[in-house]
Amino acid sequence: MPTWTLEQVAKHNTHDSCWVIIENNVYDVTEFLSEHPGGAKIILKYAGKDATAAYEPIHPPDALEKHLLPSQNLGPLDSTAASKVIEQQHMRKKTKDELRVEEALKRKPPLSRILSLMDMEGVARQLLSYKALVYYSSGSDDEVSYTENSRAFSRFFFNARVLRPVSECDPSTTLLGYHSSIPVFVSGSALAKLGHPQGEVNITRAAGKTSLIQMVSSNASLSAQNIMDAAIPSQTLFFQLYKNRNDEIAEKRVREMDQLGFKAIFLTVDAIVAGNRERDIRSPWVLDDQEKGFVPVWDENNPTGEEADMFGTAGGLVANDDRDMTWEKTIPWLRNITKLPIVIKGIQCVEDAVLASEAGVDGILLSNHGGSSLPPMEVLRRLRQQRPDVFDKLEGGVRRGTDVVKALCLGARAVGLGRAFLYAQSAYGEAGVLKIIEILRREIISAMRLVGATNVKDLKPEMVERVDWQSFIPAKL
Amino acid sequence: MPTWTLEQVAKHNTHDSCWVIIENNVYDVTEFLSEHPGGAKIILKYAGKDATAAYEPIHPPDALEKHLLPSQNLGPLDSTAASKVIEQQHMRKKTKDELRVEEALKRKPPLSRILSLMDMEGVARQLLSYKALVYYSSGSDDEVSYTENSRAFSRFFFNARVLRPVSECDPSTTLLGYHSSIPVFVSGSALAKLGHPQGEVNITRAAGKTSLIQMVSSNASLSAQNIMDAAIPSQTLFFQLYKNRNDEIAEKRVREMDQLGFKAIFLTVDAIVAGNRERDIRSPWVLDDQEKGFVPVWDENNPTGEEADMFGTAGGLVANDDRDMTWEKTIPWLRNITKLPIVIKGIQCVEDAVLASEAGVDGILLSNHGGSSLPPMEVLRRLRQQRPDVFDKLEGGVRRGTDVVKALCLGARAVGLGRAFLYAQSAYGEAGVLKIIEILRREIISAMRLVGATNVKDLKPEMVERVDWQSFIPAKL
Amino acid sequence: MPTWTLEQVAKHNTHDSCWVIIENNVYDVTEFLSEHPGGAKIILKYAGKDATAAYEPIHPPDALEKHLLPSQNLGPLDSTAASKVIEQQHMRKKTKDELRVEEALKRKPPLSRILSLMDMEGVARQLLSYKALVYYSSGSDDEVSYTENSRAFSRFFFNARVLRPVSECDPSTTLLGYHSSIPVFVSGSALAKLGHPQGEVNITRAAGKTSLIQMVSSNASLSAQNIMDAAIPSQTLFFQLYKNRNDEIAEKRVREMDQLGFKAIFLTVDAIVAGNRERDIRSPWVLDDQEKGFVPVWDENNPTGEEADMFGTAGGLVANDDRDMTWEKTIPWLRNITKLPIVIKGIQCVEDAVLASEAGVDGILLSNHGGSSLPPMEVLRRLRQQRPDVFDKLEGGVRRGTDVVKALCLGARAVGLGRAFLYAQSAYGEAGVLKIIEILRREIISAMRLVGATNVKDLKPEMVERVDWQSFIPAKL
Amino acid sequence: MPTWTLEQVAKHNTHDSCWVIIENNVYDVTEFLSEHPGGAKIILKYAGKDATAAYEPIHPPDALEKHLLPSQNLGPLDSTAASKVIEQQHMRKKTKDELRVEEALKRKPPLSRILSLMDMEGVARQLLSYKALVYYSSGSDDEVSYTENSRAFSRFFFNARVLRPVSECDPSTTLLGYHSSIPVFVSGSALAKLGHPQGEVNITRAAGKTSLIQMVSSNASLSAQNIMDAAIPSQTLFFQLYKNRNDEIAEKRVREMDQLGFKAIFLTVDAIVAGNRERDIRSPWVLDDQEKGFVPVWDENNPTGEEADMFGTAGGLVANDDRDMTWEKTIPWLRNITKLPIVIKGIQCVEDAVLASEAGVDGILLSNHGGSSLPPMEVLRRLRQQRPDVFDKLEGGVRRGTDVVKALCLGARAVGLGRAFLYAQSAYGEAGVLKIIEILRREIISAMRLVGATNVKDLKPEMVERVDWQSFIPAKL
Repeated sequence: MPTWTLEQVAKHNTHDSCWVIIENNVYDVTEFLSEHPGGAKIILKYAGKDATAAYEPIHPPDALEKHLLPSQNLGPLDSTAASKVIEQQHMRKKTKDELRVEEALKRKPPLSRILSLMDMEGVARQLLSYKALVYYSSGSDDEVSYTENSRAFSRFFFNARVLRPVSECDPSTTLLGYHSSIPVFVSGSALAKLGHPQGEVNITRAAGKTSLIQMVSSNASLSAQNIMDAAIPSQTLFFQLYKNRNDEIAEKRVREMDQLGFKAIFLTVDAIVAGNRERDIRSPWVLDDQEKGFVPVWDENNPTGEEADMFGTAGGLVANDDRDMTWEKTIPWLRNITKLPIVIKGIQCVEDAVLASEAGVDGILLSNHGGSSLPPMEVLRRLRQQRPDVFDKLEGGVRRGTDVVKALCLGARAVGLGRAFLYAQSAYGEAGVLKIIEILRREIISAMRLVGATNVKDLKPEMVERVDWQSFIPAKL
Repeated sequence: MPTWTLEQVAKHNTHDSCWVIIENNVYDVTEFLSEHPGGAKIILKYAGKDATAAYEPIHPPDALEKHLLPSQNLGPLDSTAASKVIEQQHMRKKTKDELRVEEALKRKPPLSRILSLMDMEGVARQLLSYKALVYYSSGSDDEVSYTENSRAFSRFFFNARVLRPVSECDPSTTLLGYHSSIPVFVSGSALAKLGHPQGEVNITRAAGKTSLIQMVSSNASLSAQNIMDAAIPSQTLFFQLYKNRNDEIAEKRVREMDQLGFKAIFLTVDAIVAGNRERDIRSPWVLDDQEKGFVPVWDENNPTGEEADMFGTAGGLVANDDRDMTWEKTIPWLRNITKLPIVIKGIQCVEDAVLASEAGVDGILLSNHGGSSLPPMEVLRRLRQQRPDVFDKLEGGVRRGTDVVKALCLGARAVGLGRAFLYAQSAYGEAGVLKIIEILRREIISAMRLVGATNVKDLKPEMVERVDWQSFIPAKL
Repeated sequence: MPTWTLEQVAKHNTHDSCWVIIENNVYDVTEFLSEHPGGAKIILKYAGKDATAAYEPIHPPDALEKHLLPSQNLGPLDSTAASKVIEQQHMRKKTKDELRVEEALKRKPPLSRILSLMDMEGVARQLLSYKALVYYSSGSDDEVSYTENSRAFSRFFFNARVLRPVSECDPSTTLLGYHSSIPVFVSGSALAKLGHPQGEVNITRAAGKTSLIQMVSSNASLSAQNIMDAAIPSQTLFFQLYKNRNDEIAEKRVREMDQLGFKAIFLTVDAIVAGNRERDIRSPWVLDDQEKGFVPVWDENNPTGEEADMFGTAGGLVANDDRDMTWEKTIPWLRNITKLPIVIKGIQCVEDAVLASEAGVDGILLSNHGGSSLPPMEVLRRLRQQRPDVFDKLEGGVRRGTDVVKALCLGARAVGLGRAFLYAQSAYGEAGVLKIIEILRREIISAMRLVGATNVKDLKPEMVERVDWQSFIPAKL
Repeated sequence: MPTWTLEQVAKHNTHDSCWVIIENNVYDVTEFLSEHPGGAKIILKYAGKDATAAYEPIHPPDALEKHLLPSQNLGPLDSTAASKVIEQQHMRKKTKDELRVEEALKRKPPLSRILSLMDMEGVARQLLSYKALVYYSSGSDDEVSYTENSRAFSRFFFNARVLRPVSECDPSTTLLGYHSSIPVFVSGSALAKLGHPQGEVNITRAAGKTSLIQMVSSNASLSAQNIMDAAIPSQTLFFQLYKNRNDEIAEKRVREMDQLGFKAIFLTVDAIVAGNRERDIRSPWVLDDQEKGFVPVWDENNPTGEEADMFGTAGGLVANDDRDMTWEKTIPWLRNITKLPIVIKGIQCVEDAVLASEAGVDGILLSNHGGSSLPPMEVLRRLRQQRPDVFDKLEGGVRRGTDVVKALCLGARAVGLGRAFLYAQSAYGEAGVLKIIEILRREIISAMRLVGATNVKDLKPEMVERVDWQSFIPAKL
């Protein structure tokens, strides 16, 4: 295999012949341009150049071999070129955003200071790059906890009970038959490497140690194999499927996950309408616009940001998703190719919960991507009132153990959190994830004791009451 | 025809003999003083002087010939005078507000940065003169979107549906039988030249290219002829009629519009009570008062403004409107003089919607001018509950495609926007208008997909739910 | 009659012998100390000294002769002493608050800038002394418009009507048979001299010119005679009675007012529980505490204030009021001593409105003094629903003509405003009062036209709707 | 008995041998480490050193003799060592927080400036050490008045009545048969010495002088004996019991209180789930973190604080509390060991109020510790609607006399306040407590007069109305 000089690569910098360098290897991506989920534009920005720093945090390691033909791997740079690339990286002037993060890292508090999920988010928000923060906070495609979803919980109050023996309190439960130490699971959390070099496995390792179940996203920044490798033998992992519009590709994906040992398929149906995530799309411009002194068109709370290297980090991720799934077609298709339990992720109203039940799926996950959808907690309430027979889970907006217990009182079996885990691993790696699991466990037990429950089975609808006033919410939510 | 020196003109500077120069021509407006819709006072300010800069942005080009007798056109300035007028304009010291706008223009972001209607408004607000901003934002007489109207939408949430094939989604519709590419039309947007030298035709040209219907205001800063000339042959335009109290003048106006090719008459009935537009009336004083150091009596958020040259830009526009229209008299009168479809613009309660239906008009447009009227979206909800048989359209407060779809779910056929188009053309001319049409189209399709609809006919009342809480609204609405 | 030197007066500076100088005359107030409604303490502060500046703005001119025996009027200062008093007044160092007001006066805008009652209040707040502002804004004992009362209006929206002939619109009405040009009357506005040297007659003169009815307070800073003297022959004035606990004193007062020509007695029943007017009580300390650097115990929005010279300007005014009035005893007593119509001012619930009706009084005035009482507009709504037969008026919280019209729709015959008139006369004297009457008239006509009414009799309950959301209220109410 | 040098003590600075100096006496606390309710960690911080300053404000004087064996009291320091300890205390550099408090003390206003409970809190907040403030304001274990509890009152309005004789108004009542001058009692207020050197007896003495009943907390910073000694013979005191998980210890405690003369036992059942009092737990770090420049993880409103010397002042206090109490077991057990009336403190829902009634206890006290429990005022409302036969008291969130009267209207017999008394004694000692009792008395009488009541028995449910809007609450609650 030949080696390449930087000059040779640099000539292939157009739509007609586009080469890029990733980790000292040269790839011909000319053909691939039109297939790239994130669009050709972002690749062309690096045509004829090194793209490693932009590529690495948002792609799993096996992405290249999966999407390119062997012949498109053109082989390594020569040693001079390789050194030069490294040298260029070192000599590159740090951006304002990188300097900001460096400063924040010096002031990072010890983990013992973190007492709540909001604390964790507060620290992470200061340590994350602008690009990562915008992607995480504008709603990852796995977990959405917009303000409305959070506010929905604050309208529910407990009918707290006293003089019940609650010293022994067991918050454990099972999900699809698998043990979980608390009624919380990790909802798909994509692009974890944006926040921490080890990415999703920070979560996997902590989940393994604490008997939590992780639902792994199709869009993880590590491969499913990488994540499975980090799990302990007894650990349960579910797979979150973004079904490709091409049935064959989708089937291959499902079978692969089945073989890797995932225990359930969460078919994602609420992301086909990509949310209107303006802040995310806008992130590439922020620094640029500031330097040019443009009239601001982004919201003012944004920190001084660094130019991100994708046009909407999340945007492209759903480009190949199937927008024509139906109950009649898609569920039987999936049943046919896997024996794994099937859960529908993204139910947003009672009618669809009923359809899911009738379709014979093994569970539903109430969640939304904003866009004026009813908050999951409100859908759950309606479901309890109208069709208490229909099973469910819920995610979105959870900030406290009390929120989890409120949802369980209304019949949810467990609550998924995604963003909280992304923040935790970004700020403190695996230890951060362990910390918030500990916090959630303590808060859940406190809330269970408050309503006089010592087992998740004891939690009943009559223990919560939806009031007709809006609970007080501090200005800085 | 004689020519005039500045000295000659200058002598006619009183109520008894009042001449003004407009575009190098001298006019005797002494007789006209008492007929001027905006009042004599504002004209007298320019008595004996050049009034071009004040006159031009708020009058259509044919206004002079329409309102003055040929004998009142006294002929051109002599060449010395003409040069002097231009020289004076050049030597005139720029006002603070003009300097502010000049600065803002240097920092104007490229159009690609605009991702939402709020972005567009944000840019326009910085580029507009103080006078134009105050006129546009305090509610033009064509389109009103006060805070309450916007907040009304935020109480409606979607019952989002999943697993429905929505890749193909067609947001087109018809209005009075005419095709429209999205269920949105341009509501009368007056005085567009205040924001952009080409004025209303920026909107007309963009609407032509995108198959949108424009309702042209009686108070446009271009003549109906000018606007019609900018339209392409297949383009549909409606005319918004402010009926003059003099039936003959009104009839002449309607017949003229009929001949020009307008396809419907929107009879405006909600502007007869001129809103209490204090900020607009106040705009002339702002700079003046600041220089004199007065105790402030205007709201503090107002930018440092330039003295405007009208006493309430909008005030005078309705001075000759008919305040004694009735169902019994006015609708038959209008039917009698035109075969065009008639739509009543300004219905604010269910009772009047029913009356309109009984009066046999071809459509109604729910809108208000503030003043504690129920938000149109609330009127629409009541209409749907009480008289679902009555047809309607709606305008006011729309900020997102989700708002449009919510209104359509409740039975509105289309939604009119006015202010948004004024901002767009002010900031980027025709390209700005095209941009917000593109944004609206994308947002409407997203919202339709969210509720599982692929055609506007699929949108049903059960797809939205009015909740009993107030959705979270950021401090900076 | 002897004359006095300052030295002679100065010796009488104790509780046992207390003389004070008022307008160059010496008074022995030793006996009166225990009877002073405002308490002895405030008088003793001026014992042996000149008290004119403190006394004058809050007492009617006839207060001395009414409360002191002829023998307690000790006669004038000698000429040396008189000059010295004036000299001392001139040499007295101006307080910070006086300097602040002087500065504000220089920046006072021309009256033409005032477009709303809020504008007027804004200007007045800057021109008033701290003491006057605190008294007026913390709720005079005549008119209370706390935030809640204002917010109550914002929950009512109009069912606006169109295509009704409204060019001719007559907002006039009658109160107890007397003509009023708009459905608004001046509610008792005490201590007007605190804001303007001419005091209450500023209001009387403007009311005379515009056919408005003024209800004069027992606590006016001018005598009832002074006010009556300023009225024109055809003018209607009502008298607001704070009934003294001593029936004889009260009877004398009523008979006196009857003779002076007042046309009705408004018996005040809602002030017997003196509101918890902390800001008012606190006003004397503000400057004092600031100079001593105390930890602040008052609300931070207070301007730098001047030491006021009463312990709670309003506090003492109700000290001798009758707290044991009853329906059975007080109404017949009052009927017995006067043939004038009797109106009960201060009804705060439906039950009492019914009792008033049964007691045969001629009218009721819904008002409150805060303290968690229901807002008058809400009492009015309940009254309309439960006992539409009971007549009523309303005051409190009115800020716009729309508020007036909303109250009239629900059946109120007129609306009383007090504070607004105090602000107006403070800022611009009689001209200010004329201005806000003009504003109210214009706003009332606009609101009447909006609902399609041309006469106050046309205003009906179905024209307003109480909504289940809170209308948007700007941060700076 | 031997005496000790500092060097000798200093050697015992480990978990295996831990000595501490308290008030010049040496104690061997090695054995006690594991029994300390606040945990071993906090003691070990002072191992081998003087712990007086940390120990004294939060422990009753008899704590040492109660918890240590006589043999663990090792005897006094020698005189050199004693002087050195004092010298060290004097030489210790003052912390920022101590300096802040010193400054604030110079600016402390005279007591006459305090007009409301909010004023008192405002002053106390500036004079308290950071540690004390955090403990008091984050909710003592005796009294909790979170925002929600306060807001609950603001949804109730009075149906105020007029023309009723209210000059004579008697706010006195009885509690469990004992006289109380106003329908308010002092709810357990622990750790008063944190705020004032004399601690709880400031409250006891003021309560004695004004015929108020004090409920003394198990966690008082003075012994029950100390407090009883400060009472006058006729004074009524109740005891708030935190039942120890060891029945024998608990029984000993109850018998002891019975003998000391307490008149009732308030069994606390709502504190077994220690609230999530993050600010309290966080207080030790605040200064520390600021100096190290950490990214902040606490809420920004916290003043510059001093390192507190406990890990969560309140945390440890509940460590030995019984979490397995039941209606069946605990009430009979308590009945069996005391003839005193039994009141259950901490009822949070109607169901438990009914159970308490059935269990034959002598009273219930509605209160909560936050954590999404319904506000007591809302529980009271439900109780009145569903089971008006069940007796009750209420505490939490009271800020005004109007709040007290609202609760009494709904059937509460009295209202407990704790935090308000802690603030008052911290700021002004006994005089501060007398002051707020005077304020409450005045406000309660005003509110009673407003609804036309002259006796607490006159207060009825129809005098209050819960409205469907949220009363306006200023930004700075």
